Amino acid sequence: MIQPVLHINPGDTIRTTTVDAGGRDASNTRRSNGGNPETGPFYIEGTMPGDLLAIKFNRIRLNRDSAESGDRVVGSALNSGYIENAKYDDKFSSEWKLDRANGFAMLAKPSEHLKNFRVKLQPMLGCVAVSPGEKQSFQAGWLGSWGGNMDYNGIREGVTVYLTVNQPGALLFVGDGHATQGDGELTGDALETSMDVEFTVNVIQGEGGGPRAENDEYIMAMGIAGSLPDALRQATTGLARWLEHDYHLTPNESAIVLGSSMRYDVAEIVDPQVNVVAKVSKAVLATLK
Amino acid sequence: MIQPVLHINPGDTIRTTTVDAGGRDASNTRRSNGGNPETGPFYIEGTMPGDLLAIKFNRIRLNRDSAESGDRVVGSALNSGYIENAKYDDKFSSEWKLDRANGFAMLAKPSEHLKNFRVKLQPMLGCVAVSPGEKQSFQAGWLGSWGGNMDYNGIREGVTVYLTVNQPGALLFVGDGHATQGDGELTGDALETSMDVEFTVNVIQGEGGGPRAENDEYIMAMGIAGSLPDALRQATTGLARWLEHDYHLTPNESAIVLGSSMRYDVAEIVDPQVNVVAKVSKAVLATLK
Amino acid sequence: MIQPVLHINPGDTIRTTTVDAGGRDASNTRRSNGGNPETGPFYIEGTMPGDLLAIKFNRIRLNRDSAESGDRVVGSALNSGYIENAKYDDKFSSEWKLDRANGFAMLAKPSEHLKNFRVKLQPMLGCVAVSPGEKQSFQAGWLGSWGGNMDYNGIREGVTVYLTVNQPGALLFVGDGHATQGDGELTGDALETSMDVEFTVNVIQGEGGGPRAENDEYIMAMGIAGSLPDALRQATTGLARWLEHDYHLTPNESAIVLGSSMRYDVAEIVDPQVNVVAKVSKAVLATLK
Amino acid sequence: MIQPVLHINPGDTIRTTTVDAGGRDASNTRRSNGGNPETGPFYIEGTMPGDLLAIKFNRIRLNRDSAESGDRVVGSALNSGYIENAKYDDKFSSEWKLDRANGFAMLAKPSEHLKNFRVKLQPMLGCVAVSPGEKQSFQAGWLGSWGGNMDYNGIREGVTVYLTVNQPGALLFVGDGHATQGDGELTGDALETSMDVEFTVNVIQGEGGGPRAENDEYIMAMGIAGSLPDALRQATTGLARWLEHDYHLTPNESAIVLGSSMRYDVAEIVDPQVNVVAKVSKAVLATLK
Repeated sequence: MIQPVLHINPGDTIRTTTVDAGGRDASNTRRSNGGNPETGPFYIEGTMPGDLLAIKFNRIRLNRDSAESGDRVVGSALNSGYIENAKYDDKFSSEWKLDRANGFAMLAKPSEHLKNFRVKLQPMLGCVAVSPGEKQSFQAGWLGSWGGNMDYNGIREGVTVYLTVNQPGALLFVGDGHATQGDGELTGDALETSMDVEFTVNVIQGEGGGPRAENDEYIMAMGIAGSLPDALRQATTGLARWLEHDYHLTPNESAIVLGSSMRYDVAEIVDPQVNVVAKVSKAVLATLK
Repeated sequence: MIQPVLHINPGDTIRTTTVDAGGRDASNTRRSNGGNPETGPFYIEGTMPGDLLAIKFNRIRLNRDSAESGDRVVGSALNSGYIENAKYDDKFSSEWKLDRANGFAMLAKPSEHLKNFRVKLQPMLGCVAVSPGEKQSFQAGWLGSWGGNMDYNGIREGVTVYLTVNQPGALLFVGDGHATQGDGELTGDALETSMDVEFTVNVIQGEGGGPRAENDEYIMAMGIAGSLPDALRQATTGLARWLEHDYHLTPNESAIVLGSSMRYDVAEIVDPQVNVVAKVSKAVLATLK
Repeated sequence: MIQPVLHINPGDTIRTTTVDAGGRDASNTRRSNGGNPETGPFYIEGTMPGDLLAIKFNRIRLNRDSAESGDRVVGSALNSGYIENAKYDDKFSSEWKLDRANGFAMLAKPSEHLKNFRVKLQPMLGCVAVSPGEKQSFQAGWLGSWGGNMDYNGIREGVTVYLTVNQPGALLFVGDGHATQGDGELTGDALETSMDVEFTVNVIQGEGGGPRAENDEYIMAMGIAGSLPDALRQATTGLARWLEHDYHLTPNESAIVLGSSMRYDVAEIVDPQVNVVAKVSKAVLATLK
Repeated sequence: MIQPVLHINPGDTIRTTTVDAGGRDASNTRRSNGGNPETGPFYIEGTMPGDLLAIKFNRIRLNRDSAESGDRVVGSALNSGYIENAKYDDKFSSEWKLDRANGFAMLAKPSEHLKNFRVKLQPMLGCVAVSPGEKQSFQAGWLGSWGGNMDYNGIREGVTVYLTVNQPGALLFVGDGHATQGDGELTGDALETSMDVEFTVNVIQGEGGGPRAENDEYIMAMGIAGSLPDALRQATTGLARWLEHDYHLTPNESAIVLGSSMRYDVAEIVDPQVNVVAKVSKAVLATLK
């Protein structure tokens, strides 16, 4: 939920909670309006524009047993022939029950063919943002070079997100937890729910570029742009530059690494900008030394 | 290499070889011109337009110790700022040594920073095709509803590819082996090499649509189109229709499955058409019954 | 209609007719199957791969009083919200009456609100093609570097089309006349009708690149690709190269001309490839000397 | 230049000036920072969210004899092969002299091949905006449903722009004059200059949708989105809805009008969102009654 600015120091570890995209908390109590209400801003003492913020998520954990999702695939992911003919049921219930003990989600009031449908819980945060700077203000559904509503199912417990600071104090926000999400966030709303979150913030030296992330397995460069081709260009370029900078590779050398080893994730295609992630495994990176 | 038409029967298992994209075989002998020379066509007795062909690849194995790749990322995957400034070395060697015993590839004449670079061998076939029908003929670099140069790193040993037949006898082709390939086939040529291939062909009942595939872990619908957004639309639609047909789901129900559980692979972005794959795991499908 | 190969010489002027996209001639008699049947091929004596063919259309004239179009806008030109909700009448008649004396078209059996609807006749040819070469064969709905189903409403009487030759003799085809067509050929079929056509063929020196055209007012570079952004890139690049080559401009200079004076036409978005045209007026070109 | 809020009434005619994109006025004096500084906001008394604002531009006139443009085509309009090889001159001068008496622009310090280059003056405003609402604030380079940096060369003297109001008072801004501009605003900066502007504001009943415009010749629906295909979808849909609402057409009927008579303009492809315009002539509309 929206809180007064909280001043913290680099190195601090913060335990907090996020409400769901509709403003409801762990007890399902409405605490704010909908539209991806965020927790924050956190003012990180001493950070200045151009600094690189590293937000390590030690915990991203479910704190209630319910979620709610969309129940139609967005038009931008479907052929027009499908859209023309699809018959939707306006009374279809997309409330979910989260079985935290056993680690899966199921529809709370399942329709006939989804009676036994189960999907693994993989809690993630849709939004991690700093202030966009330049006196701009975007709704919490937006995303861009400052992070924001990136809706990437790789932002899970254990990940570190890197964002370039635009304003003194950075003004960090987190929110929009999903119990799990397929690629693309195809239903517009994933399994929206509240979360317990713990993160440690550090200010580090490093190249900026777009938002980046890292976990035990991968380094990940996000490409956020107005279309899939442009987002993919940005992601690939971001990862190429990252490799060239940190591993001192030439463009031929980074091409060899990317061409043989890079993977793309289509994070989301439903928000005001598209997010594509280019990633390379740390097993491969280990051979670059 | 191009061979006379070989007549086979449904149920037959074929052992054959493919030359590399430049026409060289297991002994590195030039056997045909370059440009993805194919092995085939195989005329499958009794198959008719509209039939669905299931090609199960029992073996896709390396048969020599060398490969050659491109050494630049294609322009369509990079920002123009990167393209303007990248300095390439025209003498860069992208010959690869394939260490089949230990399962990895390395540059044969590595540049300074890639001395220790290793990437896991994951042999795949770039091309699986039937005749496009309608008296059309495409070069082997093309792809479409008939399959073709799909360049998907998921076409590996154990996969079954499904293609709709357009001509009596289907006229099956295979070729374009890659020792391994990152997503997108970013360098235009992946680690191009010759292969030993064994496959079993069957004609089955089933919905057609675009090319599909299946392995132990996933069902996969390919979206082949002129751009990433259109390929993604087609892949998602193909997977939705597959689920709706085989699991008797309504559009709301397939949206629930796709939104929570679908993954995209960006197969390739370098050929005359783009290939995006939408897939869902068999672990999830098992709960749809 | 499809005819035996006709051998002609550079400089020859040919008078012929084209059937409509459904195969009907001036008397509305079915002369061939549908799917853009072409008139040709014309074998131009002495032309060789790499030559540039200039086809000057002296006449593109209507020869009957009827046409037929599609009656729905293609899905790729509409938002999914519109597609979901549009209620179409399957009995809607999109037969047109062509009033050649007064120069306009009107629906033959107009619905209530289109009783007085009139649109100006601007006869054009959808298809001008040479053989694609490389042993490829495409259906007549396709387009590419060899021309083909370009569906550009600028291919009207007086225009000269330039195509690079891929096969000895070029193998020129023309067809797919439209009585008039809006940008994009939004209804898939424009006002399809038969035509009287007269053209003069010459082989000239000149830079190749993609298909180009010229009339009294403009020089026009066509960009044919799998998506609008890629087609636009190709069109702009084609026009920049044309200016740089013929007017000896540097890239800064061509940027000045294009940035201040270039116009785009979205020729069509409904065929297997998209066609975008970049053009600059001869009034501007006259000041480049 | 930025001014205090000026309260005006519906029906008022305002005479004002705009500085150029770099903040310079008619006397070339720097009056504000660069980045498309705007004139306004104008608070229109009595207007409320949901109202439709009609801004009729009675005058858009040059008020000085100089302009400055970019001198390279943006990467998003060019093939990567062109980008790789283009040799640019960093000292190239793209200052323009505006010959208002004779109605053309020429380079002030022309390079060799552009000595005689002349382009017709066609003064336009790049920016017309109301507040975006929802507590959002965008930089003046942005555009969206609220208008903004639409950079359309059809926004010239005599045009009426329609924008849906998001905030009480609307908060109207105008700025970013161009002495002339090709389609796409390919050089990023067109011929940027200051202007004398006179407009009359009215609040009218009418359907909202995206930004629209009208002049003596055309009605125009703007499609503003993250990519060309999405902008084109939005423009076509906007024009279809406009026709269906104002002329009581069914989807089949609007398809007949659009398919035969619609034109697209690619307004700009260089800003954070792309702008495509779909338009139909008033000559055609006259036959819809």
